[in-house]
Amino acid sequence: MSQSVLTIDGLQYSNWSRAIFEEMREGGVDAVHATLVYHENCRETLLRFGEWQRRFEEHADLIMPVYHPDDIERARETNRVGIFFGAQNCSPIEDDVDLVAIMRRLGLMIMQLTYNNQSLLACGCYESEDSGVTRFGKQVIREMNRVGMLIDMSHSSERSTLDAIELSERPVIISHANPASFHAAKRNKSDKVLRAIAESGGILGFSVYPFHLKNGPDCTLDEFCGMVADTAELMGIDHIGMGTDLCQGQPESVLTWMRNGRWTKAMDYGEGSQSNAGWPSPLAWFSDNRHFGNIAEGLRQRGFNQEEVEKIMGRNWLRQLTEGTQPQPGAVF
Amino acid sequence: MSQSVLTIDGLQYSNWSRAIFEEMREGGVDAVHATLVYHENCRETLLRFGEWQRRFEEHADLIMPVYHPDDIERARETNRVGIFFGAQNCSPIEDDVDLVAIMRRLGLMIMQLTYNNQSLLACGCYESEDSGVTRFGKQVIREMNRVGMLIDMSHSSERSTLDAIELSERPVIISHANPASFHAAKRNKSDKVLRAIAESGGILGFSVYPFHLKNGPDCTLDEFCGMVADTAELMGIDHIGMGTDLCQGQPESVLTWMRNGRWTKAMDYGEGSQSNAGWPSPLAWFSDNRHFGNIAEGLRQRGFNQEEVEKIMGRNWLRQLTEGTQPQPGAVF
Repeated sequence: MSQSVLTIDGLQYSNWSRAIFEEMREGGVDAVHATLVYHENCRETLLRFGEWQRRFEEHADLIMPVYHPDDIERARETNRVGIFFGAQNCSPIEDDVDLVAIMRRLGLMIMQLTYNNQSLLACGCYESEDSGVTRFGKQVIREMNRVGMLIDMSHSSERSTLDAIELSERPVIISHANPASFHAAKRNKSDKVLRAIAESGGILGFSVYPFHLKNGPDCTLDEFCGMVADTAELMGIDHIGMGTDLCQGQPESVLTWMRNGRWTKAMDYGEGSQSNAGWPSPLAWFSDNRHFGNIAEGLRQRGFNQEEVEKIMGRNWLRQLTEGTQPQPGAVF
Repeated sequence: MSQSVLTIDGLQYSNWSRAIFEEMREGGVDAVHATLVYHENCRETLLRFGEWQRRFEEHADLIMPVYHPDDIERARETNRVGIFFGAQNCSPIEDDVDLVAIMRRLGLMIMQLTYNNQSLLACGCYESEDSGVTRFGKQVIREMNRVGMLIDMSHSSERSTLDAIELSERPVIISHANPASFHAAKRNKSDKVLRAIAESGGILGFSVYPFHLKNGPDCTLDEFCGMVADTAELMGIDHIGMGTDLCQGQPESVLTWMRNGRWTKAMDYGEGSQSNAGWPSPLAWFSDNRHFGNIAEGLRQRGFNQEEVEKIMGRNWLRQLTEGTQPQPGAVF
């Protein structure tokens, strides 16, 4: 296989298996932001780390942990997929600001302040009232800045996201979502938010989850690449990347867990509905990890030059991780 | 202050404070094995790590974490005390073998398989029956070998200790105890155990806790150094070091916690008794961290040459940590 462009996916929660890791290599994926947890508390988060440790042992020929951004280059050189970790919620730190540094030491590079609902830190995108970043949230943002943990507002609401950008001394990211101007959805982001993310030095990872796309599963590659081009205009070519939100091979029970956790007895359908409760149908041009080449080719067709394609497919994520996960100068922990 | 011999203390659980860190520097202590936990479960262990993170921030001019043995040299060069962590019990890993690697990643370099009582792994030195290393214990020893976490049998019973040495592919240590031939006590070790520790490549750290010494608080420096000389004969000069068991400034409530944890309603007096329940009176020649020079001088008086004194005061511990905390070749986690 000839060396493809550096490819970093800004979010997946696939049903990790040897088959999927092999498909990732086939698709030229050099590194992926793997969601470690949705609703897991501190102790449960360590169970998830434990499961990954076993995967790293068992599939050492295919994957390796990324505990430092340089490890991505090492993964690429050895034809493996680098796995870097993020949490889609702040549940791992419970009510304890000291757990930010502990989770960072364990390799948690990214954490969302909220997942759809109000959290102890901020407001999620499904709440009706958004009171912004909380007292605890301000402390946690400061600590995330200190230790070098990227603040991810993918599932957060508008005001909380703008608050976080204002409060943070370092870039804020949206690892997986699309512009609301392309497709109006609670999970997609306003131009105001996207501009502020770019100004903070952050990144938007484009989602190919059909609920985030115009025409859902029927969205064409050309429409997707058009959205990328428009967003490049809005945010600048250095502030966009991929964040597929691919949940390859997951059973519906996982979707139910993501949406309901332990917080509700009444079924919550998230972006779906009672009559459309399951996983959406996949896109024709991106249904699994082997299809990243389609996107790169689509971007070329759309008129992006080679350097721009490389930035979108992986270089911007690499820069973001390199800059964003260094502890602040003099930070001790 | 002129550069004193490299001084590494193989165990303390002092009531950590700026005053104590200053005394450590005054006493020429370059690094200390700090007990992180006695009975704390996984989540509680993270609280203790969190407290240390705050100490590292607050007293960055006096202390620094030792996450790799090389950090000890860095601590010495910058006139700070390097802190390396150990657990006096296996409570941090609960019933989960994966937590061994997670705790190692967080900087736990040393773990005792038991603390006085039967644990899930092995038998403690205060039990009446010793059935040796358990099924879970065998798995944990293998995992500790893999990730490079030193197996410490200080509070374990005879058979369990010999079992662990037999099962482990890497050195087994006793971080803090004395030979039973010097002073018969349940916590002190038989010549058979000490010989096996040395043959495994491990170390004995000499305790100055009065309950471990002949004549208790009245033990003289000369008697102590005589014990060191006899043990050097028994184990070899490369397999002995310091492990003071200093609990400087601790209130009696901490002693009660160490002895009773949550496991008994009836008061357990450990090495003491109802009529002698508290901390023992300190030694005249070693009552706090400023007195390591007395021991080095006592050893010289006893006839140890400079190289031997340096080995006992710190060089042997440095070698043990350097060799013992490297993951096995090819180990991934």
